[in-house]
Amino acid sequence: MSQRIVIALGGNALGSNLPEQMAAVQNTARAIVDLIQDGKEVVIVHGNGPQVGMIANAMTELTRSDPEHYIPCPLSVCGAMSQGYIGYDLQNALREEMLRRGIDKGVATVLTQVQVDPDDPAFEHPTKPIGSYMTEAEAEVLRRERDYDFVYDEKRGYRRVVASPRPGSIVEIDTIRTLFESGHIVIACGGGGIPVVPTDGFHLKGAAAVIDKDFAAEKLAEQLDADTLIILTAVERVAVGFGTERERWLDRLTAAEARELADAGEFGEGSMKPKVEACVEFVESGPGRRALITLLERARDGIAGKTGTAIEC
Amino acid sequence: MSQRIVIALGGNALGSNLPEQMAAVQNTARAIVDLIQDGKEVVIVHGNGPQVGMIANAMTELTRSDPEHYIPCPLSVCGAMSQGYIGYDLQNALREEMLRRGIDKGVATVLTQVQVDPDDPAFEHPTKPIGSYMTEAEAEVLRRERDYDFVYDEKRGYRRVVASPRPGSIVEIDTIRTLFESGHIVIACGGGGIPVVPTDGFHLKGAAAVIDKDFAAEKLAEQLDADTLIILTAVERVAVGFGTERERWLDRLTAAEARELADAGEFGEGSMKPKVEACVEFVESGPGRRALITLLERARDGIAGKTGTAIEC
Repeated sequence: MSQRIVIALGGNALGSNLPEQMAAVQNTARAIVDLIQDGKEVVIVHGNGPQVGMIANAMTELTRSDPEHYIPCPLSVCGAMSQGYIGYDLQNALREEMLRRGIDKGVATVLTQVQVDPDDPAFEHPTKPIGSYMTEAEAEVLRRERDYDFVYDEKRGYRRVVASPRPGSIVEIDTIRTLFESGHIVIACGGGGIPVVPTDGFHLKGAAAVIDKDFAAEKLAEQLDADTLIILTAVERVAVGFGTERERWLDRLTAAEARELADAGEFGEGSMKPKVEACVEFVESGPGRRALITLLERARDGIAGKTGTAIEC
Repeated sequence: MSQRIVIALGGNALGSNLPEQMAAVQNTARAIVDLIQDGKEVVIVHGNGPQVGMIANAMTELTRSDPEHYIPCPLSVCGAMSQGYIGYDLQNALREEMLRRGIDKGVATVLTQVQVDPDDPAFEHPTKPIGSYMTEAEAEVLRRERDYDFVYDEKRGYRRVVASPRPGSIVEIDTIRTLFESGHIVIACGGGGIPVVPTDGFHLKGAAAVIDKDFAAEKLAEQLDADTLIILTAVERVAVGFGTERERWLDRLTAAEARELADAGEFGEGSMKPKVEACVEFVESGPGRRALITLLERARDGIAGKTGTAIEC
C-alpha cells in the first residue's frame, strides 16, 4: 500500500506577492512531485498570510475609492479568493512538473471551509495580524464601525488582528476524500480553510478569523486516515535551546518527548511550537501515524529518514 | 437513469456586489435544489462579469495605492479569485437549501481552467468590457505600458475590453467528472473558466480574455455526456421579432430552425444569439441531447416541458 501524506506548506513555498508566487510554486512543485514520483499519494495544505493580506488590502482600497458602491469585504470572502488565487498557481505548477516527468495525474483545488467553535477562547484574544498598517484615526473608525481589533507597533502604527481558533470539522471532507481516493493530487484547506461557524437553519457564517494551516493539515490528515503529516518550513530540523549555547538539533522524538519539550517552552510561540503540537496531535490520533518537520527542499530525504525531525509514537 | 443536467446561470442568479450576491444565491439555490430533489444530477456553470470586474478594480486600486509593492494583477488571476468568491457563496447556499430539505449530498467548487486558441479571431477584436471607466490619460498609460484595449463611451469615458474566445478543452475535466459521478453537485467553469493558452514545456499561460459562460457550459455538457443543457437567463422564453409588432415567443425549435433564425439576425448579438448558438451546438453534438432556455425561477417547469424554449434535434 502506498503512503498517504498530507503536506503543510510554509510561507516560503509561495512567496509573498504575485511575481514571487509564480516563481516559488515551481520550486515547491519540484519538491512535491519528487514524492509523487516515489509513489506517494499527497494532499497539500498551504498558508495564505501574505495573499489574504494583499486581497484584504485591495478590497479596503476599493471601498476607500468608492464607499458608496463597495461595502467592506468580509475576511472569509478574502480567504475564499485567496484559495482561488493560490490554488490556480500551485495546481498549474504541479501539473506542469508532473507532465514534464511523464506523470499523468489530475490536480484539483477544492474550495474548503473548516468549522470553528464560536466559543473557542482564541476569539477573546485575537493575535493574528492581517493586512497593512494604518494610522490611529483609520483604526479608530474600523474599531467603532466594524468592531475590529488592532495591535500597535511604535514604528509602523496600527494593524488589524483576528482570532486563530482551532479547526473543527472540514466541511468539504467528502469532496477531498473522493478526489484523493480516485488518485488526484488535492490542494485543500488553503490558508487553513475558510473559518465558518454553524448557525440555526444549517447556515455556515464566515468568521473573522484565520485557522493555523498546520493544525488544519493535522485535522485533514486524521480525517483522510493518512499515515504521514509533513510540515515543510524554513528550517531543516527542530532544535531545543534554539540560538543558545545548548542548541541541539533533533532527529527523532516520541510524541511524549515532543509534548514535554513544547510544554517546557523550548519551541517558539506562534512559530515552531504549534508545528510540534500539530505533529504530536497527529501521532497520538491513531496507530502507525508519524509526522515530520523539515525544509521544503529536503522533503524526499526526510521521508526516507535521512534528515528532518521525525515525531513518532 | 437519472437526467444529467448542466446549468448555466445568468447574471441575475448572482447579483452584482457582495450583499446582492449573498441574497441572490439563496433564490438561485432554491431553483437548483428543486431539480436535485426531482432526482436530477446537476453541474453548475456561472458567469462572473460584475465579480471579476470588482476584483480587477480592487487590484487596480491596490496598485495605485502602492505601486512600488504591487504590480498590476493579471485578469486570469482575478478570474481565479472570482471562482473562489462566487463558489464560496453559491456552494454554501446550495448546501444549506439541501440540508433544509433533508438532502445529503456534497457540493464542490472546482477551480477550472479552459484552454483557448491563441489564434482565435476573437483576440483581434476584443469586445468584452471589464472593470470601471477611466479617464483618457489613465487609459493611455495602460495602453502604452500593458497593451490594454479600450472602448470609449461619450458620457462615461474609457473602459478596458478583452477578447472573448471560444472554449477549447477543459483542463480539470477529470476532476469534475470524478465528483459528478460520485454524486456531488459540482460548480465548475466559473466565469466561463480561467482562459489559458498552452505554451512550450506544458505551461499553461493565463490569457487576458473572458470565455462566454454559455459556451463553456455547452462544452462541459458535451464532455460530461449530459443529456440536457439549461441556460437560465432574464427571459422565460426566446422570441423572434423581439420588441416589434411581429414578436412571437418560441416553445420549441429544432436545432436547424434555431440556427436559421440565429443566422437571420433574429437574436441579439452578445445576448440571446450566443445562448441559442450554444444550445444548437449541444443538441447537434450527440443523439438525445436537448437544450432549454428559460428563467431561473421556471427551471423546474421548463424541464417538465411546461415553459421555456426547448431546442431539440
